[in-house]
Amino acid sequence: LASLVEEMAPDDRADLLERMDSAHVERLMPLIAQAERADIRKLLSYPDHSAGSIMTTEYASLPVGVSVAEAIAQLRTQAPNSETIYSIYILDDSRRLRGFISLQKLILARPETPVGELMNKDVISVRVDEDVDLVAQKMARFDFIAVPVVDEQNRLVGIITHDDVLDVVQEIATQEAQMMGAVAPLENAYLSTPFLELAWKRGIWLVLLLVASFGTSSVLKHHEGITPGFEWMVWFLPLVMASGGNAGSQSATLIIRSLALGEMRPRDYARILVRELLTGLTLGMTLAVLGAAFASFSVARYETLVVGISVCLVVAFGTVNGTLLPLLLKRMGLDPALMSNPLIASLSDILAVVVYYRVADAVLTSASQFVVP
Amino acid sequence: LASLVEEMAPDDRADLLERMDSAHVERLMPLIAQAERADIRKLLSYPDHSAGSIMTTEYASLPVGVSVAEAIAQLRTQAPNSETIYSIYILDDSRRLRGFISLQKLILARPETPVGELMNKDVISVRVDEDVDLVAQKMARFDFIAVPVVDEQNRLVGIITHDDVLDVVQEIATQEAQMMGAVAPLENAYLSTPFLELAWKRGIWLVLLLVASFGTSSVLKHHEGITPGFEWMVWFLPLVMASGGNAGSQSATLIIRSLALGEMRPRDYARILVRELLTGLTLGMTLAVLGAAFASFSVARYETLVVGISVCLVVAFGTVNGTLLPLLLKRMGLDPALMSNPLIASLSDILAVVVYYRVADAVLTSASQFVVP
Repeated sequence: LASLVEEMAPDDRADLLERMDSAHVERLMPLIAQAERADIRKLLSYPDHSAGSIMTTEYASLPVGVSVAEAIAQLRTQAPNSETIYSIYILDDSRRLRGFISLQKLILARPETPVGELMNKDVISVRVDEDVDLVAQKMARFDFIAVPVVDEQNRLVGIITHDDVLDVVQEIATQEAQMMGAVAPLENAYLSTPFLELAWKRGIWLVLLLVASFGTSSVLKHHEGITPGFEWMVWFLPLVMASGGNAGSQSATLIIRSLALGEMRPRDYARILVRELLTGLTLGMTLAVLGAAFASFSVARYETLVVGISVCLVVAFGTVNGTLLPLLLKRMGLDPALMSNPLIASLSDILAVVVYYRVADAVLTSASQFVVP
Repeated sequence: LASLVEEMAPDDRADLLERMDSAHVERLMPLIAQAERADIRKLLSYPDHSAGSIMTTEYASLPVGVSVAEAIAQLRTQAPNSETIYSIYILDDSRRLRGFISLQKLILARPETPVGELMNKDVISVRVDEDVDLVAQKMARFDFIAVPVVDEQNRLVGIITHDDVLDVVQEIATQEAQMMGAVAPLENAYLSTPFLELAWKRGIWLVLLLVASFGTSSVLKHHEGITPGFEWMVWFLPLVMASGGNAGSQSATLIIRSLALGEMRPRDYARILVRELLTGLTLGMTLAVLGAAFASFSVARYETLVVGISVCLVVAFGTVNGTLLPLLLKRMGLDPALMSNPLIASLSDILAVVVYYRVADAVLTSASQFVVP
C-alpha cells in the first residue's frame, strides 16, 4: 500500500489519506519515503475547501533566464514528475511567480529566444487559502488548463488542474442541491452513505422544520379562537400557504444559484429586491384571480375576495422573503443555500396564516357595514 | 463584425450566432469567408444538448504513418489553428479515428519512433449525437483535456475541450437547480433575463402547483363535512402536511442529484426504494414523537395519538413518493428534476389530508368504544 501511495499524484494521495481512518494513516506514514511524507503532511495541513486542499505540488517550472531550447530540454526531464507540462510557470531565485508560458507557445517559438521575452507576465493566480468556489469561478472564466497557487509572498506552492476543478464544481453543485432540499451535505455518493449518517443529516433538518411548523400551528390556533364561524377559511388554507411557499422557493433558488455563480454583487441587491417584489406582485395577482375563481364555487362573494387578496399578498411576501433571506445569509458570511426550499416554505407558512386571518378580518368587517345583518 | 466572427473559435462562434437574431445572422453570413461559412452551418445544424453542439472543429490530427520528429513539425503548423495541440488524434486515410497521443508523450519520445507505435489505440470518444450530460460524465471520470467526437462511421468530426465541459457542467447544474425550485430553466443569467420571461417561467409552474392545491382544498372540504367537532385538527394540519412535504423533498433531491451524476442504475431502484422507506419510517417515528409531544400541550390523549400516527405515516409516504416519482420520470425518458421540491410538497399535501382524517376516524372511533360517552 505504501509504494502504491508513493506512486499516486500528490493531490489524489492527500485526498485518499484524508478519507482514511487516522490510525491506518499513522501506521502507513513511516513506510513512505521521507520526501513524499513531508509533501503529504504539508498538503493535509491545508483547511478543507481551500485552494491548498485540492492543489498538486507536481508542476512544471523554469528559471527566468533560460532559452526556448533549454526550456524544452528541462521540461523533458520534468515531464514524468509533473501532472501537466502544458502550463509552465517561470520563477525567480526565491521561487516567486514571475510569468507563465504554455507549451503550445514554446513549441512554436524559435529555439534561441529567451523564455523571459515570450512569457506572459500578467499571471492570474490564486492564494493557497482562497476558497475553492472562487477558484472554480476563475477557472470557468479564463478557460485555463491549470491555475498556479501562491502563498502570501507570491511564491509558487502548487497548481490546480482542470480535472480537479471539474470535480470541485460537481461537488459544490451536489452539496448546494442537497442543502436546497434541506439535507446536510453528504461526504460520499448517496448509495455509499451509511443509513445512520443519512438519517441524521436529514433528521436534524426535519426537526428544525418541525419546530417552524409548531409556530404555524400556534398562530393558527390563536387566530381560530378569535374568528368563530370562519370554518370555510380552512378549506383554502393549504392553497394560500402553498402559494407563498412556492413563490418564495422560486426566488430563493434563483438568488442562491446566481450568488453561487458569482453573478451578483452587493450593489445589485437593492435592484434585485425591487425586481423580485414586482415579479411577486404580478404573479400574486395572476394566482389571486385563479384562486378566487376556484373559491367562488364554494363560498360567497366576500369570502372569495378574502382568498384572492390573501393569495396576492402572501405571494408578494413570499417572493421578498425568498430574496431577502439568502442575501442576508450571504452578507453574514454564511452559505445562502442554507435557506432551503422547505425552510422558505415553512417560514412563509407562518406569515401566510397571519395575513390570511388579518385580511379576512378586514374584508368581512367592512363588508358587514354594507350588508344588512 | 464579420471579420471578428471569422477570428473566433468555431464552437464559440456557433454559440454566438445561435443566440443572435436570425435576421442578423442571415445578413452576416454572406460577408463571412466560404470555408468558415460551411463550418458554421454544419455546427449550427447539430441539435441543442448534443455533443456536436458544443464541439470545435479546430483539432490537431496526424496521419498514422509519421515519426515523432515529423509529428512535431506538423503540429507546429497546425498549432495556430487548433484549440489545443495537447491531445492529438491519429487518423487513417478515410479520417477514421485510429489512436490518440498526448503532446507530453510525444515530447518525451525519441524522434525517429513511429507515432503508430506510441499511440494509445483504445481511444475513448463520444458520438456526435450523444447527450452533453453523458459527455460531461465521461470527461469527469477520465480527466481528459479534450475528448474526440466521431460520427457513426467512427470518423473524427471535432473535439470537446475541458473548458467547454466545465461550462456545460455549470449550466446543467444551474438548470437542474432551477427546475428543483419549480422554475422553467432560464436561457441566460438571472440578471440578464427579461422581466416577462422570468414571470412566465415562474408563472406556469405556480399555476400548475395552484391547481394541485385545489385538489388539497377539495379533499379537505370533503373530509371536514363528515367530521364535525374535529376543529382542533386544523391546528396541526400545517404540521402534518409540512412533515410529509419536507421528507419528500429530501428524498427527491437526493435521488435526482444522484441520477444526474450517473450514480444509479435501474437495477439499483428496488434497493433504493426499500432503503428510503426504512429511512422514512425511522424519521417518521422521530418526528411523530416530537409532534405528539407538542400537540399534547393543546389536546387530549387520543388526539395526540392521531397527530403522532399521522406524522409517521405521512413522512413514510412522502419519502416513498419523493423516491418513486423521480425514478418513474427517469424510466419514462423525462428529466427527473421536473419533480421539483414544491411539486413533491403539493402532491404530498393531498395525501397528508387524506391520511390525517382517516387516522382520526380510526383512532377516535376505537377510542369511543373504551371511553364512557
